[in-house]
Amino acid sequence: RYSKLFQPTNIAPKTLSESDTKLSLMSKSQKLLIDMGIIRQSSMGIYHLLPLGVRSMNKLKTMVQKYLTQIEAQEVKMPIIIDGTLWKKSGRWGITGAEVFKIRDRHENDCILSPTNEESVTELMAGLGQLSYRQLPFLLYQVTSKFRDEIKPRCGLIRTKEFEMMDAYSFDESIDTAQNTYERVSMVFENIFNHLELPFIKVLADPGDMGGEISHEYHLVSDVGEDKLKICEICNQGANIELNSNSCPSCGSTSFRQVTGIEVGHTFLLGTRYTLPLECKFTNSEGKAQPLIMASYGLGLTRILAASLELLSTDDEIIWPAALAPFSVCIISPKDGSKEWDVGSVLSWDICKALEQILPDDVILDDRCNQTIGKRLRHARRTGYPYVVCVGKGVVGSPPLLELVCTVTNTIEHFTLPDLIKFFEDFQRH
Amino acid sequence: RYSKLFQPTNIAPKTLSESDTKLSLMSKSQKLLIDMGIIRQSSMGIYHLLPLGVRSMNKLKTMVQKYLTQIEAQEVKMPIIIDGTLWKKSGRWGITGAEVFKIRDRHENDCILSPTNEESVTELMAGLGQLSYRQLPFLLYQVTSKFRDEIKPRCGLIRTKEFEMMDAYSFDESIDTAQNTYERVSMVFENIFNHLELPFIKVLADPGDMGGEISHEYHLVSDVGEDKLKICEICNQGANIELNSNSCPSCGSTSFRQVTGIEVGHTFLLGTRYTLPLECKFTNSEGKAQPLIMASYGLGLTRILAASLELLSTDDEIIWPAALAPFSVCIISPKDGSKEWDVGSVLSWDICKALEQILPDDVILDDRCNQTIGKRLRHARRTGYPYVVCVGKGVVGSPPLLELVCTVTNTIEHFTLPDLIKFFEDFQRH
Repeated sequence: RYSKLFQPTNIAPKTLSESDTKLSLMSKSQKLLIDMGIIRQSSMGIYHLLPLGVRSMNKLKTMVQKYLTQIEAQEVKMPIIIDGTLWKKSGRWGITGAEVFKIRDRHENDCILSPTNEESVTELMAGLGQLSYRQLPFLLYQVTSKFRDEIKPRCGLIRTKEFEMMDAYSFDESIDTAQNTYERVSMVFENIFNHLELPFIKVLADPGDMGGEISHEYHLVSDVGEDKLKICEICNQGANIELNSNSCPSCGSTSFRQVTGIEVGHTFLLGTRYTLPLECKFTNSEGKAQPLIMASYGLGLTRILAASLELLSTDDEIIWPAALAPFSVCIISPKDGSKEWDVGSVLSWDICKALEQILPDDVILDDRCNQTIGKRLRHARRTGYPYVVCVGKGVVGSPPLLELVCTVTNTIEHFTLPDLIKFFEDFQRH
Repeated sequence: RYSKLFQPTNIAPKTLSESDTKLSLMSKSQKLLIDMGIIRQSSMGIYHLLPLGVRSMNKLKTMVQKYLTQIEAQEVKMPIIIDGTLWKKSGRWGITGAEVFKIRDRHENDCILSPTNEESVTELMAGLGQLSYRQLPFLLYQVTSKFRDEIKPRCGLIRTKEFEMMDAYSFDESIDTAQNTYERVSMVFENIFNHLELPFIKVLADPGDMGGEISHEYHLVSDVGEDKLKICEICNQGANIELNSNSCPSCGSTSFRQVTGIEVGHTFLLGTRYTLPLECKFTNSEGKAQPLIMASYGLGLTRILAASLELLSTDDEIIWPAALAPFSVCIISPKDGSKEWDVGSVLSWDICKALEQILPDDVILDDRCNQTIGKRLRHARRTGYPYVVCVGKGVVGSPPLLELVCTVTNTIEHFTLPDLIKFFEDFQRH
């Protein structure tokens, strides 16, 4: 479709119903996302994603899936409702607190609303029965809703009770090959943050209730974060302060700087933490049954969306990672009844169609022509469209000129339509 | 990526662990989907989707979204955990039974695991505050997991406790425009079933606990179904027998035939059933506040997947709706050490790369070369790939010939590689 007439930001509330006190407690991303009609609170710590929010989330999902497919990860979909007996077998039922949603079905069976799926995937693999070392490694992933009954949800999408998470699980025949797989997935995490152009810090972390030997967290540095990280002044390696290490685990230095991070990813080299109690085995090259060596990997997609806005946005204007903007281009047609109207309104559609060819499903036309171009440009800036094409005064000149606003660098250039098309063809190629 | 070396069907169990008695109680789709490693039971009435199942589901989702986008529906994502007070306001908390999963969070708030979202979306719209008749109609949809605590889950994915559903909601200014929107979405439902080439029956139905005036169900006719439908012998209009009508609601005839259907879609013209109690209003052309006229629409995607196999498959071989096959083409390379091996193994890769250009991410190479081509062909037939290309004896001839098996029509043709490519170019165009 070339027509992009629907305007989801129309459903943005102009003024917040929350009181001023509440407003001042909001984090930047929370305020911007609510204000611009991208998310909306449903109940405490639980949010609707509105159309623009869904678009950003879909872009993030697609990107994550692309990188995972490159390392031959296979997508599955595990249930949200997990049989409690699995968590009793693994021992996690007893050690987790009220942050895990526990429910009882009509037959009085204990169940869990999935916060993570180590038990489920291990049970799945254990049930296959005839795994040979030749088939390994296996790397499975999914992107689904996860649940935590947070006592204090905060900062909008940063800490919620229900969120989108990518969780991946690998199964290997030995610690060596498992470490190899662990490194490959870690590289995917780094590629994703690099693609998003987000400066991240990877630190050693405490595996906590999850168990296993080695664990790394991925953080975006922000005052909104809740984790304190110690970064070595000598080698730049980092560790979560919960690890309580007095010297750098990498170079032994005792000179650190401390930063605050938002945890957006976590990886665990689990060994046989789950495969032993759940009897998940494979047949090795000598024909003997052995427990699989497991690792698990999580990326908080909802949180990445919000945290990236904490890092990039100004107080008044959303700035998205370029790859996650709900639309890359917004075209603003002339004001109804203006001098430019006759030429410009048809031209706006032509531009829309031409750019849709280059950036499919990534262009929106703002045809609320009762508003001035200036007002709609401010709205487009606040929503964070990276490029805005204003069909303004220049179109009555010869040749007709279009105004291209790059909202991130805050620069304006004038283009003829062919040059504008060329600009976006180059943009699309990079 | 052109390489499709991963083989998710490898994780299919060769023999079922279930006892023979249990097996005989399984429906055809359930047995086939489990047997071929496409789904796997997690707990009673709850299933994992394995990689091939995820692929089919993603194809179905994408198709449904394409049709909805054509009528300018906007995608949202509403929470799975619904605040119970909303259902108390609408009156549904009291009238629903144990089939709704009810939970209590750590602060002792009643919540529901979303089976449907009339209350949530109405509350969302009501919160916008300033809706004008000029912005209407609004049509929002989502594709998310839904929950029902079924007392007797049955037939695999046909009746489960957790399933994927597309739910859509429309808001209009009058009954007339609402009926118009209702017809447009109904047409989308028909287009989807036609695209899937599934013979469906649309019948009048009882709105039940949902409320509202008019309601239609979409059924696939199958003995596995649980709904009895009366079809008029004169005008072919149908109604669910729960409606208790003695004459055809359309032509008045009293001559019926009865069929059994699997309900795969349901639409409700709700009027003000939810917008009145939840005070969801708009400003009409005279500046007066009026309750919005609402309709809701559901498509059971998980169930469509399974029901289509009940209709199309044989007892031993899955037949997918062409648009939902996990891969459209499976290429089988020669057996290791065979006469064809030298020429054929390289050629298999070339074919794979060439067809991937035509059918991106829709071709799988079966390179389990320790197995005969015949064995792998049987496996490909059972999995239901519509086209299988065997790189067999013909490739040592001059010119080299490839065997194309169309599994649905059970025909075999021989092609040179250029002709094979031409065949799939034509296929892709239609």
